[in-house]
Formats: sequence, C-alpha cells, structure tokens
Amino acid sequence: MAEITAVSPLAPDRFPDLPVIGGVSFAAVEAGVRYQGRTDLMLAVLCPGTSIAGVFTRSSTRAAPVLDCQAKLGGDAAAGAAILVNSGNANAFTGQFGQTSVQQIVRAVADRLGLPPERVFTSSTGVIGEPLPHDRIIAKLEALAETQSPEGIAAAAQAIMTTDTFPKGAARSVAVGDKTVQIAGIAKGSGMIAPDMATMLVYLFTDAMIDQPTLQKMVSRLNERTFNCITVDSDTSTSDTLLACATGASGCDVSGSEAFETALHDLMRDLAHQVVRDGEGATKFVEIVITGAATDGDAHIHGLAIANSPLVKTAIAGEDPNWGRVVMAIGKSGAPADRDRLSIRFGTVTVAEKGWVSPDYREEEAAAHMKQADISIHVDLGLGDGAATVWTCDLTHGYISINADYRS
Amino acid sequence: MAEITAVSPLAPDRFPDLPVIGGVSFAAVEAGVRYQGRTDLMLAVLCPGTSIAGVFTRSSTRAAPVLDCQAKLGGDAAAGAAILVNSGNANAFTGQFGQTSVQQIVRAVADRLGLPPERVFTSSTGVIGEPLPHDRIIAKLEALAETQSPEGIAAAAQAIMTTDTFPKGAARSVAVGDKTVQIAGIAKGSGMIAPDMATMLVYLFTDAMIDQPTLQKMVSRLNERTFNCITVDSDTSTSDTLLACATGASGCDVSGSEAFETALHDLMRDLAHQVVRDGEGATKFVEIVITGAATDGDAHIHGLAIANSPLVKTAIAGEDPNWGRVVMAIGKSGAPADRDRLSIRFGTVTVAEKGWVSPDYREEEAAAHMKQADISIHVDLGLGDGAATVWTCDLTHGYISINADYRS
Repeated sequence: MAEITAVSPLAPDRFPDLPVIGGVSFAAVEAGVRYQGRTDLMLAVLCPGTSIAGVFTRSSTRAAPVLDCQAKLGGDAAAGAAILVNSGNANAFTGQFGQTSVQQIVRAVADRLGLPPERVFTSSTGVIGEPLPHDRIIAKLEALAETQSPEGIAAAAQAIMTTDTFPKGAARSVAVGDKTVQIAGIAKGSGMIAPDMATMLVYLFTDAMIDQPTLQKMVSRLNERTFNCITVDSDTSTSDTLLACATGASGCDVSGSEAFETALHDLMRDLAHQVVRDGEGATKFVEIVITGAATDGDAHIHGLAIANSPLVKTAIAGEDPNWGRVVMAIGKSGAPADRDRLSIRFGTVTVAEKGWVSPDYREEEAAAHMKQADISIHVDLGLGDGAATVWTCDLTHGYISINADYRS
Repeated sequence: MAEITAVSPLAPDRFPDLPVIGGVSFAAVEAGVRYQGRTDLMLAVLCPGTSIAGVFTRSSTRAAPVLDCQAKLGGDAAAGAAILVNSGNANAFTGQFGQTSVQQIVRAVADRLGLPPERVFTSSTGVIGEPLPHDRIIAKLEALAETQSPEGIAAAAQAIMTTDTFPKGAARSVAVGDKTVQIAGIAKGSGMIAPDMATMLVYLFTDAMIDQPTLQKMVSRLNERTFNCITVDSDTSTSDTLLACATGASGCDVSGSEAFETALHDLMRDLAHQVVRDGEGATKFVEIVITGAATDGDAHIHGLAIANSPLVKTAIAGEDPNWGRVVMAIGKSGAPADRDRLSIRFGTVTVAEKGWVSPDYREEEAAAHMKQADISIHVDLGLGDGAATVWTCDLTHGYISINADYRS
C-alpha cells in the first residue's frame, strides 16, 4: 500500500480533549493484522444498562461483521456490551470464512469478558477480499482486557485509522434538567466515502440514559442529516458502521430532550466534516447548500450530483469558479430543475441567475473565494421550498496517487 | 485552458480513410470563436431528400442548440438540410441570448444556402456559460459555402474537437441487394462523457435511402447499445447531440435491412470506443461485461456502477487487479446482487467466485492482464439472464491535470 505520510491540509490543529464517559473503557493494541508498527485493534467495554443503536451501509455486498452487528441491535441492555474493531482488513467478500471469523472473535470476546455473544459487536476496516487473520486478533484479547481505561478513547481513535491522515474525535456536553451529560465520538474515513452511509466507522458514547428504540430513532434521523450528507468519491463502503452507545451512567434521562438531540446532531456533523476534511487527497472542504427545490429529497439529489461530479471537484481543486460545471451537474442529476430559474453563488458572490451569468458578476471576486480552504456553493432552484446541505472535498492528484497504488 | 499536446496512448494509428457519401459536402474554417490557430467551425450540406434522425442529452440544463435541433427532427426532407457546428463555446446556460444566437446563425445559414430555417441544425461545444460570439460564425458562412467539398469530412472531424487529442472517424460499406451503401461518421469527446447520451457530438452520414421515422427508430435503438454504454467521468454534457443523415443518393432502400443495421451498429460502437479511447487522461480502455443479472436493465446499472467508480478506475490506472473494489461497486449500484453468487474475471483469469477469492486464483496472472492497454472485466451475478456491456477508461493524474485547469 502507498505510504501516506502527509497530514491533510484541512486537518484540525490537534485531536480534541475528549471527556471520560462514565460506563465505558477503552484499550488499543498492535495486533499486526496487516499494518506493522502501529495499533490496529481497539476494544470498548460498556457497562450493564447500555443502549446501543446503529446505522449501517446499505451495500448489497456488505461485510460479515456488518451483517452480524445488524442482527444484534436491540439485544438485552442489562448484560453490558463490547465493541471490538480492527483496521487493515475489512473481512468483506470473504464468503463463509468471513462469517466464521466473526463468530470466533465474538465468542472469544464474550468468554473473556463474561458477556453473551449477542452483546459483542465487531467491525473490520481495510482491504477487501482477503481472509481476516482472526487468530492474531484473538491472541490480543487478554492484553486488551488488561489495559482497559476510561481515558483510552484517543488511542482507540488511532487504532481504527486506515488511510486517514489524522484521528477523528469530537465531544459535547449538554445540560439536561439539573444534570450534565457527556457525549464523545470517534470516526474514521477516508476513501470509499459516500452516503448509505457516508463514513466507514463511527462510534459514539454518552453517559445519558435513553432506551434503545428512542436512541435508534434519534440516531437514524440525525444520520440522514450528517453522515448521509457527505461524500468523498461517491463510492460506498461495504463496512460502513455507526454505533451509538448510551451507558446511563450519568443517571440523566434524555428521552425527549431537544438539547440532547441538538448536541448529538452537532457532534455527528462535526465528525462527518472531519471525515470529509480527511478525504483522500483533499485540499478543499466544500459545503453545498441547495434551496428552492421542489422537495427536500430533490435538493439532496442535486447536492450529491454536484458533490460527486468529477468535473466540479477538479475545478475546485484548480480554484476555478467554474459554475458551468455546477449547471451541468444539476442537469444530469435526474431531479427537476428549470435552467432559467437557477441562481448560483460561490461564497457571497452571485455568479449566475435566471439562466445566465449575473450582470454584476466579476470573476476575480469568485476566484478569490475559490482560493480559500473552505468553499461554499449555494444553488437556488427557484421551484419550491425543498432544501438540503451536503459536504464534500475536491478531487486532486493526491486522490489518484493514494488509490492507484493502495493495494498492490 | 490547459495545453493538451500529447495524443492519447489509446489513439488509433491514424484517421481512417472515409468514403465520399453521395449527397453530402463539407467545409471547415477558422472562425476564432475561442481557439486560435486551428479550425473551429464546420458546415455539412445535405441534398434534398435527406432523412435526419437524432438523439440528444437528457440533461435538464441542455444547451440552446440542442433544444433547437430537437424541435426540428422530422421536418421536410425534400428541402435538403445543413448542419453547422462550432467548437470552443457550448452556448449552454446563456439564457435568452443563447436562443437568439441560434436563431441568428440559423437564419444566416438558411439565407445563404436557400434552405428553410427548420432544416438548419446547429451544435456548439466547449465552455459553458459564456455568450457565443455568433457574429464571428456568421462572418465565415461565405467562406464555408464557397469551399464545400465531398471530400471534406476529415477536416470537419478536426474542427469539432475540443480537448480531444485525436479526431474520430469511422466508415462501413454494406451490400444491400445488388447495391452497396456507404456510411461514414465523425465524433468528438472527450470529457463530460456519460450516458444520456455519452458523447458530446456525433454526425453520421450515409447514402442509403430510408425514411425518417424508420431511421429514427434504428438510431435510437442502436444508441442504447453504443453511446449510452460508455462513460469517462459520469458527467453528462449539456450539449450531447447525435445526428444521422441518410441522403438516399445511392438509390438503395435499406428499410428492413438487417445488414445495414448491423453495419450502422458496428460503426456507432467503433466511434463510441474512440470517444472512450480519448477519455481525458485515459491510459486504459476497459470493457465491462455483466451477465447473470436479473434483467438487462440491472446489468446495465451494475456495469455503469463499476465503470463510474473512482476507486475501480484508479485501481485500473495502477494496474492493480483490485476485485474488492468491483465488489464494492456492485454493492452500491442499487440493483439486486447476491454477494455469495458473484463471480468475477479479469481477462480470462477467474479472480472470485461464490462470494470469495477463487481457489485457483494467482494474483500474478490477473496482474499480467492489468498491464495491457485493453482491460476486460466480466462479472456474472448468478441470478438470471440479464446482460449488458459498457466501456470506460481509467482515472489518472492526466484527468486531474486537464480538468483542474481547463477554464482558468
């Protein structure tokens, strides 16, 4: 695989300080699944009473661990739970062997931690189609169990990285009644990123109290507006998994709390943006706002058509305010558009309106916006009230370098 | 715009010798629409009795000349016809001004050639969103009319190029009864290439006799299996136009002739392949054959999902037999697939079957196939009899170089 040494120019300055979440402990070790000289295996152990919700890739070729996790949501929270994640090998398209690997890992974790197997969740991320060396993983369970720590989340974020150039984490605290609950999350990208869902792996932890069906509905709803609104390359991973774990350790019931949902939404969007900011080869972070569509669904389709267009993405890489390519992408999206009602803004610069270049448009103003690291494109379709926002990055030589040489 | 000097490594050795088509003459001149030092305007004049069929982009933001052509199909063949094409400016997203430009050009051509305006077809290809300097075009009509020649088709193929690195032409002759009819065609690519339809501009000429409705049905049918089966970058042009002109000069009626349809199909596929071979930055020509799908439509969806996947295309650029990415693309396509019934071949090498790597697979054999300029990927879904073939190219640094710097 290609050596990816440079950190994305869009990376945050540093990994944030994440709070301890009562009821969760973490450990990370080097298991040598594929990578050498770095951690590649993490374990999160969750206290009895933890609700776990999840959303997953809708790929028809999804990986064995995804299928296993999907079957386990809604299990008995009273028993506690564990999440084990390896990087380097996705255990995807590995036939019957893949399922056997998951079963063996799950059984070993369950035995070691005294959990029922249906409360052990696993994820694998990395190369597709190669057998997962599950013995190397099982051999490290003892070390993982012995080094569990409530402070271990940053190490866990490191262990799940593949082509990521920085670990991704975010936290929020929110007052609910007279109590404060904490939420912390980690994620990894950074290629094969497209909706359904858009990131490969995300783990969220909170000490809030909330029952599984309520948490599941909230996470599914927020996922539609966060991770399902990002794309790097339009390619959908076979391993995409988001698990949200509420331990209840704060003793604070957040069912029906708008403040909690807002904080969780904010945290999920933060992590989703970090995934885009680490998009393979990315040099620009792009927010695409669609308004005036016939429906919200149409707006989302237009937004993704723009965000996934190689010609739009290369123009952004070239700092070219090429709004003609935005028009092209709207035209091909399949959702309704009226050429002569479109208006397009780059940043605060109106470039096109009523089917043609704006009379006030001065290319140097738009070009100045394109030179920034964070780009905004706003399209109003002039048809109705439908709106959506999606996020993407540019398409650069870096993407080609990383992906023309990833596996060989 | 970027200087594109190198010729595609996948280009044919030379432009083919195209036969004179009775009833058509051509001219090409330098009008300075945008480019300097090259021809950028071509005129084809068609004799009375010529049937003209067409297929066009389905983009909702299609250009003014496309809308004008679409309205004119099925006009009075007895009057003769003309086709005028400029490169350098697409006259797309140019509002009311764009329609006015088309009208002025059409009227001037009609006046000069003594044709009704509804028999004058125009196309424009190049940059989007800038006003077409139609005066520069009209100023050259006299020169075009005076230099018409039955031998001018190669010059016409040159004049319609934009980022193309070679002119595209093909010819077939076919015996129908005791007569022989000739077919010749020219096309241009080479970015913004995706179905609906997949090439920007194609013009076909034959001396066969065939009425317009029959020709239209045949061309629409064949288009589905040729130009609508190619993709370079998944981006759909706002200008895509195919016009097929049958002058009848051979006196040979080809209605109902299977041989004629086969020859026309063959020629259209040839031109479609040439467009792919000149895909921006292409170093590999890729044929993707899907069999065993539930329906032909599903097979087409799977084929395009693979052909448009940036991760598959970069793997091909890297000569990496990365079948995991093929599995990923099938999984995301949205059409039915059963992971454990899939089989995948690269060239003649079976890489995966029954949901996992083939027991006989040796990566060096697949890697040897990937080193060739022409790559073949065959996926059998094991579900039914649906089949489709699509063609694409790889995604390289060349694509990024061309498109991150096209307009600025």
